[in-house]
Amino acid sequence: MSSPDVMVHLHHKALQLLQEDANKIEKLIEVQMENLATRKCPLYEEVLDTQMYGLSREVDFAVRAGLVMESTGREIVSRLERNLAQLYEALESSK
Amino acid sequence: MSSPDVMVHLHHKALQLLQEDANKIEKLIEVQMENLATRKCPLYEEVLDTQMYGLSREVDFAVRAGLVMESTGREIVSRLERNLAQLYEALESSK
Repeated sequence: MSSPDVMVHLHHKALQLLQEDANKIEKLIEVQMENLATRKCPLYEEVLDTQMYGLSREVDFAVRAGLVMESTGREIVSRLERNLAQLYEALESSK
Repeated sequence: MSSPDVMVHLHHKALQLLQEDANKIEKLIEVQMENLATRKCPLYEEVLDTQMYGLSREVDFAVRAGLVMESTGREIVSRLERNLAQLYEALESSK
């Protein structure tokens, strides 16, 4: 591959990996949303916070390595933060 | 830059970033080692665990993106884990 091809491939790969990890967290949020009534796992908040921190560190690394634009990285994290806020709001209302 | 140059640069950059973050944790461990007697901050364990988790996620991402060899990444984390184990041992003995 030529130099630009390599970079395009790496940027694509980095974004794909971050998106995969973001999707896993989104899935966790969705599952929790669907089980508002039951709430069998009291650790969900802890788990989600830890996962969010891990993802933010990955995003930060990818941005510093020049693989992902800062705005793109921020968008991935912000999107999840909005979802999380909705979940916490729903949990509050369902109390 | 040609394709191999770009890759060499990126691998170097990725390793450098991981090493920087590893060094920060190592510094935290050292400071704590020097202050065994005083131990003014009871949160150091929590902070170190969180930092270690963050670094392991960065390393994992770099390995998956093909920027760092798995063995290199493991070595960075293992080295810190050994230091941490020494710190905890020293804390135990100083009790």
